[in-house]
Amino acid sequence: MFDETDIQMMQNALALAWQGRFSTSPNPRVGCVIAHGTQIVGQGFHIKAGGPHAEVHALRQAGEFAQGATAYVTLEPCSHYGRTPPCAIALTEAGVSRVVAAMADPNPLVAGRGFAMLEAAGIQVESGLFEAEARKLNRGFLSRIERGRPFVRLKCAASMDGKTALSDGRSQWITGEEARADVQILRAESCAIITGIGTVLADNPKLNVRAFSTLRQPARVVVDTALKIPLESQLIQDSGSPTIIATLSDNKEKLQKLTQYSHVKILKPSENNGKIDLHDLLVVLAEEGYGEIMIEAGITLSTAFLEADLIDEIILYQSAKILGNHAKSLFGFIDNESVLSKPATWKTVSVNTIGKDIKWILEK
Amino acid sequence: MFDETDIQMMQNALALAWQGRFSTSPNPRVGCVIAHGTQIVGQGFHIKAGGPHAEVHALRQAGEFAQGATAYVTLEPCSHYGRTPPCAIALTEAGVSRVVAAMADPNPLVAGRGFAMLEAAGIQVESGLFEAEARKLNRGFLSRIERGRPFVRLKCAASMDGKTALSDGRSQWITGEEARADVQILRAESCAIITGIGTVLADNPKLNVRAFSTLRQPARVVVDTALKIPLESQLIQDSGSPTIIATLSDNKEKLQKLTQYSHVKILKPSENNGKIDLHDLLVVLAEEGYGEIMIEAGITLSTAFLEADLIDEIILYQSAKILGNHAKSLFGFIDNESVLSKPATWKTVSVNTIGKDIKWILEK
Repeated sequence: MFDETDIQMMQNALALAWQGRFSTSPNPRVGCVIAHGTQIVGQGFHIKAGGPHAEVHALRQAGEFAQGATAYVTLEPCSHYGRTPPCAIALTEAGVSRVVAAMADPNPLVAGRGFAMLEAAGIQVESGLFEAEARKLNRGFLSRIERGRPFVRLKCAASMDGKTALSDGRSQWITGEEARADVQILRAESCAIITGIGTVLADNPKLNVRAFSTLRQPARVVVDTALKIPLESQLIQDSGSPTIIATLSDNKEKLQKLTQYSHVKILKPSENNGKIDLHDLLVVLAEEGYGEIMIEAGITLSTAFLEADLIDEIILYQSAKILGNHAKSLFGFIDNESVLSKPATWKTVSVNTIGKDIKWILEK
Repeated sequence: MFDETDIQMMQNALALAWQGRFSTSPNPRVGCVIAHGTQIVGQGFHIKAGGPHAEVHALRQAGEFAQGATAYVTLEPCSHYGRTPPCAIALTEAGVSRVVAAMADPNPLVAGRGFAMLEAAGIQVESGLFEAEARKLNRGFLSRIERGRPFVRLKCAASMDGKTALSDGRSQWITGEEARADVQILRAESCAIITGIGTVLADNPKLNVRAFSTLRQPARVVVDTALKIPLESQLIQDSGSPTIIATLSDNKEKLQKLTQYSHVKILKPSENNGKIDLHDLLVVLAEEGYGEIMIEAGITLSTAFLEADLIDEIILYQSAKILGNHAKSLFGFIDNESVLSKPATWKTVSVNTIGKDIKWILEK
């Protein structure tokens, strides 16, 4: 069904899609290659929501050479009139004779209709080449569509002995420059960053991408049950990224002050024992279009997400330092019996050195 | 000075030397290749103290072909009559015309005399090819000779969040089968294993190599200040490995009972604030011929060795599990200010997956 040329061309399309990893949110990352055999005549990737889809960029480059060519796309071409006309129609009108897709688009607005439109126009359609890779590229988008909640990555940093700070709270030397630069990349890839009100009050972080310029900044989500966030905090004063405050509070005066900032939005997820229900928070964020989320929080919120079994991936940076048992632990209380009964919950994806530290990626 | 052939032949000699890693203690690991160009005519490695040296095995195989050949040795040939006659004489009598060594032997019984004997016989001698690799091969032996104390490796195992056991002490599921098999290899490589009396009383371990057969078992050293070791413990009842009890006690009755076991030896290192002085313990063990030591102990003794700055290498196995902050920490109290002032004490040598766990090697 797929030959060596198909494999090469789809690998190109996947690499193209990845170019959009910092900017397509809330849209998926998509790449497209148009070729006659191994002769590429057009290529493109989706850059930003509202802009042209990958297929349009590739067709523009191909021009008349698209006639009789094969189009390789990492996701089923769209069939709906959204901010741009359907790509299935554009491909048909350009005269491509075959479309190879990595996967169907689970988005209910598409969901096979793109393939059907192409086939109805007499175009040969094949799907499933590098589907696993294509799914990984868009695991946030897919999680939002398929599970109704975002893909959630927990980022944490600790010493060799699992400590995050000295007993007096000092922690600035836990991980090095390279690990911190890596976190900037993870932030840029995320649709949103979740943190807790404790971290906001203690560190007043900006939680934005500063190491390089990007077309889009991730939103910052504060889990702030009692609406304690100070108006003078950076998340409120810095309008360079959206800020979402998830709260249970009805403090009208404070809410009114906060909503005067155009980049600030208030969300009210449901309550669970006096606290924000974290699963519902994720559902609400998915409804808002956030698919890929990173948690950068302290021990309380990180542990709460772990205990609620809502983490899909852990990225743990560990430094080659020893802090000792008086220092602060990475995670809080975890029920022993649940550990005992689920001994193999996490799987190592990879472990590597990064500067003087190590980077350990684990998934469910 | 060294050409491509020399490089190949010395690499062979180093690989041969490594064949003796489980068995040569207290002698160094040594390999020897005898060749005319790339034509190998003899090769050998030292297997066991008291048996032939590497050069003798290689010369026996080469026979008359040694005439005019080059001998590659990973350590300077010996010059003294020990349990075997000097290898410098054997090489001379066999008629080799050139000797290439990876390094000089710092053993005061040799220390350049081997090279001098060869040169006096008209043999061309060159040294220093792959010296760093040759030193690593024998870092225990070299530490004993050069520093007067063994090379000390600390082996430990923890969860992703740096915990060693649940709060009730249960820990059997921390690391998997592959990590435990790897520890068997590390044990077999060690001259001795140090543990604390706490571990002996709690776990009654045998601390021997059981996963495969070996020509030699490492000695087991118990740090037992007050001589609490039960006579019925496995370290006393199992005579398959030497057992060394380091104590400050003068309990004559107990000492007399213990010395009735021929595999048990009592050592009395000096005292430091009512405890065994760990540096002096290492000095005494070096005097006894132990060069490569692994510590497999609980939090108390492991932390004491760390605080005394006596660890050369840490091997940390971490499982992809989370135990939470009620669980037991990997290390005990470490003075915060000393951590702050020495932030980059440890260097990562490597980090890899092993089964479902990771293996992180760190050195000073």
